Amino acid sequence: MRLGVCYYPEHWPEAMWERDAANMRDLGLSLVRIGEFSWSRLEPTRGQFTWDWLDRAIETLTSAELSIVLGTPSATPPRWLVREHPSLLAIGPDGRPRGFGSRRHYCFSSPIYRDEACRIAAAMAQRYGNHPAIKIWQIDNEYGCHSTVVSYSAAAAAAFRDWLAARYGAIEALNQAWGNVFWSMEYPDFDAIDPPVATVTEANPAHRLDWRRFSSDQVVKFNHAQIEAIRPHAPGVRFLHNTMGFFTEYDHRALAADLDVVGWDSYPLGFLDSFAFPEAEKQKWCRTGHPDIAAFHHDLYRGVGAASFGVMEQQAGPVNWAPHNPAPHAGMVRLWTLEAFAHGADFVAYFRWRQCRFAQEQMHSGLRLPNDMPDIGFGEVATLVSDFACLEAAGADTVTRQADVALVFDYESQWLIETQPQGSNFQYMALVFQTYSALRRLGLDVDIVSADDVPVGYRLIVVPSLPILDAERLGRLQATGALILFGPRSGSKTTNFAIPETLAPGPLGTAMNFSIPRVESLRSGVEIGVQGDAIHGAITHWREYTAVGGTAVAARCADGAPALLEADQLAYLAGWPDEALLEGVLIRLANRASVPVRPVNAGLRIRRRGNLHFAFNAGPDPATVPIPKHARLLIGNSQLDIAGVAVWLEQT
Amino acid sequence: MRLGVCYYPEHWPEAMWERDAANMRDLGLSLVRIGEFSWSRLEPTRGQFTWDWLDRAIETLTSAELSIVLGTPSATPPRWLVREHPSLLAIGPDGRPRGFGSRRHYCFSSPIYRDEACRIAAAMAQRYGNHPAIKIWQIDNEYGCHSTVVSYSAAAAAAFRDWLAARYGAIEALNQAWGNVFWSMEYPDFDAIDPPVATVTEANPAHRLDWRRFSSDQVVKFNHAQIEAIRPHAPGVRFLHNTMGFFTEYDHRALAADLDVVGWDSYPLGFLDSFAFPEAEKQKWCRTGHPDIAAFHHDLYRGVGAASFGVMEQQAGPVNWAPHNPAPHAGMVRLWTLEAFAHGADFVAYFRWRQCRFAQEQMHSGLRLPNDMPDIGFGEVATLVSDFACLEAAGADTVTRQADVALVFDYESQWLIETQPQGSNFQYMALVFQTYSALRRLGLDVDIVSADDVPVGYRLIVVPSLPILDAERLGRLQATGALILFGPRSGSKTTNFAIPETLAPGPLGTAMNFSIPRVESLRSGVEIGVQGDAIHGAITHWREYTAVGGTAVAARCADGAPALLEADQLAYLAGWPDEALLEGVLIRLANRASVPVRPVNAGLRIRRRGNLHFAFNAGPDPATVPIPKHARLLIGNSQLDIAGVAVWLEQT
Amino acid sequence: MRLGVCYYPEHWPEAMWERDAANMRDLGLSLVRIGEFSWSRLEPTRGQFTWDWLDRAIETLTSAELSIVLGTPSATPPRWLVREHPSLLAIGPDGRPRGFGSRRHYCFSSPIYRDEACRIAAAMAQRYGNHPAIKIWQIDNEYGCHSTVVSYSAAAAAAFRDWLAARYGAIEALNQAWGNVFWSMEYPDFDAIDPPVATVTEANPAHRLDWRRFSSDQVVKFNHAQIEAIRPHAPGVRFLHNTMGFFTEYDHRALAADLDVVGWDSYPLGFLDSFAFPEAEKQKWCRTGHPDIAAFHHDLYRGVGAASFGVMEQQAGPVNWAPHNPAPHAGMVRLWTLEAFAHGADFVAYFRWRQCRFAQEQMHSGLRLPNDMPDIGFGEVATLVSDFACLEAAGADTVTRQADVALVFDYESQWLIETQPQGSNFQYMALVFQTYSALRRLGLDVDIVSADDVPVGYRLIVVPSLPILDAERLGRLQATGALILFGPRSGSKTTNFAIPETLAPGPLGTAMNFSIPRVESLRSGVEIGVQGDAIHGAITHWREYTAVGGTAVAARCADGAPALLEADQLAYLAGWPDEALLEGVLIRLANRASVPVRPVNAGLRIRRRGNLHFAFNAGPDPATVPIPKHARLLIGNSQLDIAGVAVWLEQT
Repeated sequence: MRLGVCYYPEHWPEAMWERDAANMRDLGLSLVRIGEFSWSRLEPTRGQFTWDWLDRAIETLTSAELSIVLGTPSATPPRWLVREHPSLLAIGPDGRPRGFGSRRHYCFSSPIYRDEACRIAAAMAQRYGNHPAIKIWQIDNEYGCHSTVVSYSAAAAAAFRDWLAARYGAIEALNQAWGNVFWSMEYPDFDAIDPPVATVTEANPAHRLDWRRFSSDQVVKFNHAQIEAIRPHAPGVRFLHNTMGFFTEYDHRALAADLDVVGWDSYPLGFLDSFAFPEAEKQKWCRTGHPDIAAFHHDLYRGVGAASFGVMEQQAGPVNWAPHNPAPHAGMVRLWTLEAFAHGADFVAYFRWRQCRFAQEQMHSGLRLPNDMPDIGFGEVATLVSDFACLEAAGADTVTRQADVALVFDYESQWLIETQPQGSNFQYMALVFQTYSALRRLGLDVDIVSADDVPVGYRLIVVPSLPILDAERLGRLQATGALILFGPRSGSKTTNFAIPETLAPGPLGTAMNFSIPRVESLRSGVEIGVQGDAIHGAITHWREYTAVGGTAVAARCADGAPALLEADQLAYLAGWPDEALLEGVLIRLANRASVPVRPVNAGLRIRRRGNLHFAFNAGPDPATVPIPKHARLLIGNSQLDIAGVAVWLEQT
Repeated sequence: MRLGVCYYPEHWPEAMWERDAANMRDLGLSLVRIGEFSWSRLEPTRGQFTWDWLDRAIETLTSAELSIVLGTPSATPPRWLVREHPSLLAIGPDGRPRGFGSRRHYCFSSPIYRDEACRIAAAMAQRYGNHPAIKIWQIDNEYGCHSTVVSYSAAAAAAFRDWLAARYGAIEALNQAWGNVFWSMEYPDFDAIDPPVATVTEANPAHRLDWRRFSSDQVVKFNHAQIEAIRPHAPGVRFLHNTMGFFTEYDHRALAADLDVVGWDSYPLGFLDSFAFPEAEKQKWCRTGHPDIAAFHHDLYRGVGAASFGVMEQQAGPVNWAPHNPAPHAGMVRLWTLEAFAHGADFVAYFRWRQCRFAQEQMHSGLRLPNDMPDIGFGEVATLVSDFACLEAAGADTVTRQADVALVFDYESQWLIETQPQGSNFQYMALVFQTYSALRRLGLDVDIVSADDVPVGYRLIVVPSLPILDAERLGRLQATGALILFGPRSGSKTTNFAIPETLAPGPLGTAMNFSIPRVESLRSGVEIGVQGDAIHGAITHWREYTAVGGTAVAARCADGAPALLEADQLAYLAGWPDEALLEGVLIRLANRASVPVRPVNAGLRIRRRGNLHFAFNAGPDPATVPIPKHARLLIGNSQLDIAGVAVWLEQT
Repeated sequence: MRLGVCYYPEHWPEAMWERDAANMRDLGLSLVRIGEFSWSRLEPTRGQFTWDWLDRAIETLTSAELSIVLGTPSATPPRWLVREHPSLLAIGPDGRPRGFGSRRHYCFSSPIYRDEACRIAAAMAQRYGNHPAIKIWQIDNEYGCHSTVVSYSAAAAAAFRDWLAARYGAIEALNQAWGNVFWSMEYPDFDAIDPPVATVTEANPAHRLDWRRFSSDQVVKFNHAQIEAIRPHAPGVRFLHNTMGFFTEYDHRALAADLDVVGWDSYPLGFLDSFAFPEAEKQKWCRTGHPDIAAFHHDLYRGVGAASFGVMEQQAGPVNWAPHNPAPHAGMVRLWTLEAFAHGADFVAYFRWRQCRFAQEQMHSGLRLPNDMPDIGFGEVATLVSDFACLEAAGADTVTRQADVALVFDYESQWLIETQPQGSNFQYMALVFQTYSALRRLGLDVDIVSADDVPVGYRLIVVPSLPILDAERLGRLQATGALILFGPRSGSKTTNFAIPETLAPGPLGTAMNFSIPRVESLRSGVEIGVQGDAIHGAITHWREYTAVGGTAVAARCADGAPALLEADQLAYLAGWPDEALLEGVLIRLANRASVPVRPVNAGLRIRRRGNLHFAFNAGPDPATVPIPKHARLLIGNSQLDIAGVAVWLEQT
């Protein structure tokens, strides 16, 4: 486990750099990320490169034995470049170009900008591509942040038409696939198709979903181009991008196919305050974050397809960008770091070395204060260095092994359900997160996997929802041999956003011998009780009515209708479960799959890595950890205060 | 009573049509609407008409003894036409043209588009105008849906100037009428007047009201042009338009002057979830709809001026367009159909024959599922066929007779109060609906009438609010001889949106010998108790202070101020009543008018047609119907479950 | 104390003017404002001046011994002028010009419009500048009303660039000051800088704050130009502008530097309903206004720098522009008038003489009804005339003296915190108002002062928050010798919107020997208990963590951290206080400063002017006033009903 930090030498007097580097090294850090917003300093006007300061910064840092993650600066095209090529600006849904003056104002589809981003990346690579201490290159920064995946520029419209032509071949095929006969929406040719914006009512959902797919692809293409621009000049380096939390506007697995490392940016308190948690939860966890936020993303990005993952930006104190920005509870920076390790991270880098005195993020804390005194997180990192030394001394096995349970998370499902929620309170991500959290409260380790690429070896696969589920996809899932639970809306759509000819759940219905002739969305407050063997709960938000052949029914609604259906290795939950129903169903399925559950309370969570066992307590009260008698306690003990961590060894 | 269905042959393989037609006939349907969104299939490119498929569809349907309602496709100008004439697109309040890709993207004021719509309509009429099974033509579809009545195009601005010039003659007259001396808003000529949009603060309310009147007129003009284009080629046919629920953006009575049939689109669950009902009501009625939603619109559209009315689109299962879309309670499709009959409808057509697999409305259910199995509504329609046979067998009188009570509903009042709410919780439609519901809870049949054209014969006329109430209008109302109750804001404005010289309520105040020197709007939660003889309630939202001469006071506010004033045949309620006050006032007035009230509870409603008496129970509990001992029970009985219906004969 | 009224002769038939004037005089009014929206009547087309009607109106009014406040009409550029020069229109954040049809549609930065406004002002001055009864000129009307201070026009952008060039001299200095190295935001030259709008995420806060400073300066410059255009033709007249409530978009002190009189527009009920008060408060005070709203603004505008102040527009009944517009409680017009006098006002003018029958403000009441009958306020003014006669007869000293307590209110702080709230519930104005109200509930008179210009003589200065607090500013405050309490965020920023090098609270921290390494914002509902000697309360919204040297701690958070720090004449409150904490802290500080507190309850307030003592009761219940035994009661008595006023004489 390497610890690192994000650093902006260009923000500070050069006289401070050497002491900064020494302080980093002395703290025990070994990794430092630099460069990712520095275009205006690397190339103040076209073609005039000012490498000297970066040369010296790199020299100073590497002299202190720090490895460098070097970022390309394409997230911030400078003013002179925007002046030269105003067409590189993204266009909003209001048809207006985004203004200069913050960041991420470029359009992914601008061919001019793609070339410019590659040009500066190649220039950096020519200079630093062979530097022995620069083995990881970060491409751009947080793709999509501030809702920037989608742009309605002329370049995007043109690229969309090409993308559609490539996908459908002939306009008749597209008209057929989208069902454009409906409302006379048939297009005479690909040139007649616009981005789905400013329509009187919703555009065709097939049109909108393809637009989302296309927009995601443009991100992947942009990223790929930069990598290819760098690669010839930087043999053997690894490529990284830093992703975000609860962010789904592009397919991270498609992006990861070009990456060696995923470094995600973990801000548990900001995510809690920004994401759709109930008010009471936002208050309860305001200084620790919901206990599953960081874990969920670790498990997600560990499985997204890159060779390794870590935390590129770790919250180290209050941030500036959420509606409210409380201070982390004492100990949480340490907890979050050990939690990342427990979930398989290779590194954790803190954001940022020193709180900046000026500009947009001046209220974003770092390890050190603007006056260079250590901030609270700094002290916790110092503690971590001895924590990791202690773990290392124990000689434990730290290989991250496949869990018993896989959870399927699918970006396309998010876009599809955003396009057609059918009930305003149906949010795919909320359903996935609720499912993940329920599994974690049962004491289970979870791998988050793609619907298309699930390794064998799982005992239980949980699919909260998977609208597009054709026979091949289902077959691949079944071939894993696992018990599989599907949630509502699974199998409800074809690839072209139509209802399957055999109705939902499509091939899954064929396999399980039932269909879903009717669904309904329900306003919050309307509930349908559900009962089964050791299952007591309710359906809310979304209910499905089933036409069941001989399929076994394991739980029923108050009116007798099936709620949980089972057929051999397949199970189906015909509605959005409340917490109690979800827990009952998951315990039942885990039992059937011979996966042992060990329920924990409130904010306590358990996680294994190799033969190391970790317990984390996010509160709101102290917790008792069920540590086996013969375990070898390495860190902490069985009584955990808020933010407390215990680590022990068991024989695996 | 004819039953029918909306059908889209162009959405399904031609091989299915014959079976569909047979299934319709076998179910007992006799009416089928087709064609209204099919422009791109009727004329794929300019001038190339492809009538053959429609010829065959019509032949197939009529061979199964189905009558056809044929729709003109002007709600969906196809892509090639928009490409030819981008100026036909409506312009939003943001100044941007509406995008292609959904429907209703045209501007009512575009002369080019009006001509095009007439051209396709005439071409259809030339081909099908004399078809013996096509006796009803539907013009366009749901004018105004998705807020499309108003457009800010250059064509609309030009037409508005002409409209104003015609109305006022000279610019000085307009400046005087609007009071443009205020804030130096005087116009030098008509060309200087723009639509009231993008102003710093509200534009002159007179300007805004005229803009609404103009925009409504443009819809009427557009509809009229199509009818005149069809008529020469289709002698003797009847013209229909399908209207919506809680929709007031154009004057439906002015439209109906050109129509023979009003066919309205009844979606009780969608309307409940979308309209401004309190949260508790939305939950309570989520699967039945509020018990007065459908009835209100039946009574409204029965009286809007066309020779007959029916339901052109009847919800037959969950819809897709409300924030939440629950399934109707079992039996509600039958209840809604019988309710339509009870309120005088000539036909009910279900939307749609078969749920479509693709495009925007794929989650909108129909009588049959996408896989062509019958959906739940299909079974209820089968039951209805025997229900109607039973009623017919009884040989009952089914003439819809004038009720004892008339409720005045006025489109212009809606526009006026939207323009100047004065209190953010003052919604004209909510006040009207609340009044209607209170009358219905008293067991009364209600006719909804225009303020300008109230037939004689009513005992009680209730006017929830009628801001523009000049002496002529009042005189005509008085001439009916009925007892008349006026609600708040009645008589408060002149035609030109000014305060009457004698203050509110204008001529009504002269007639009743009082005036209203002051009004106030109140935030929700602020109440003023009101007491009178058998009246106990409160004023909320809006209170009026009166200067009373010798007018009798039938109820007073807690501070002694008059709340209900009476003078001979006229009564005035000086505030927005809560439910208790409204009920007390209406009972008092009904008693004075010798109208017998028979209060019912919760979701139970009573309605008469001829000598048939109907009871409907929308829940939320079973209900007991007060059926007279000697009545002849035809359907159901006195114990009604939720969605239960009883019908009995009384001697009229 | 003069009483007056706002009058619009152009709205009424000339035949009414003479009676109006006589009625004004007979009521006891001596001041009448006219002219401020009458451009289209003064100059119906370019260069054609129609002074005759205004000549006659002035003659009629002055013949009735009324003095005139004459307004320039620049708030309403007429249609012909907009047609000539469309570029004078302000541009919204959406990039679109504001439409004609209401008011304030001009851009402050338009050089053309500035010239035109000066032209009409000069023309008026040439005609009326020497009129003996016109001694006060009102420039324009309510600058900024309807969010009109900021415009994104090309003229504004150009002026902003000039403003920046003047402020920073060289682009390098600006880049350095703003910290544009962050996110590569460096500008190559001043021409490259745009207004901060339409950026992907927030623009640099330094950029945004300078934009606000600039926009405020443009208002001041516009006002100055008109005054300079009038002055040569109107020797010796006084200049007035009428300001608004809770309005902070420009710096009123900078404006007042050019004014002789500030006449503010007092609408307590409208302000209550529109401003961010809790729902319960909005209900409780709906007919009286919150008891501190008018007083706060009197104290603010008394101290804003002009030689005198008064109320130019006094609410006299329900208004039309708030979300809800209730009627004032009987007696409130009288109360508000006496309250204005108590707080030092020289005049109170009612808005308006007669409710207008037409256009936007037809629902805004006046002293007389549209039919010219007296409205309720008219009667209360009649009472006031005898009230003031009674006070005058008592021969009291009515000199407004400096209070013991000063409250610092700072416009720039408002802009800064709006730019960077850091917590969505942190509103500067709400904190200031809460502090003012707490002081007033302690029975204290308060002067509201600028941070830069606090006279000596105060015992206690309360600074709710003052982010920009450099050593000079602090030094000037300390030089007053007063005890000074600073609230959260004071000293947290430099002039260029950066964190001080020594951390917050900057020089104040140096003076008090502590610093603030960390702050946090908290969602509503999260509280931290605070205790101290006679202090019991909580911190909400915002907490600061302190690093304290030897500074005394007078109250601590539940976790022991300092909440209230004291060092000699300086005190610092490290968080947003709830009501209880604020009261405890203020009592402690008042005691330390030897300022006697006399707490009052609920809506009762006490105020002194000279040796006159006033008590006002805004309810919601009757109140008992602590009138000393030997006081000489002039008006009312010690038992005050709602809207009751008592006035007595004490020996000062």
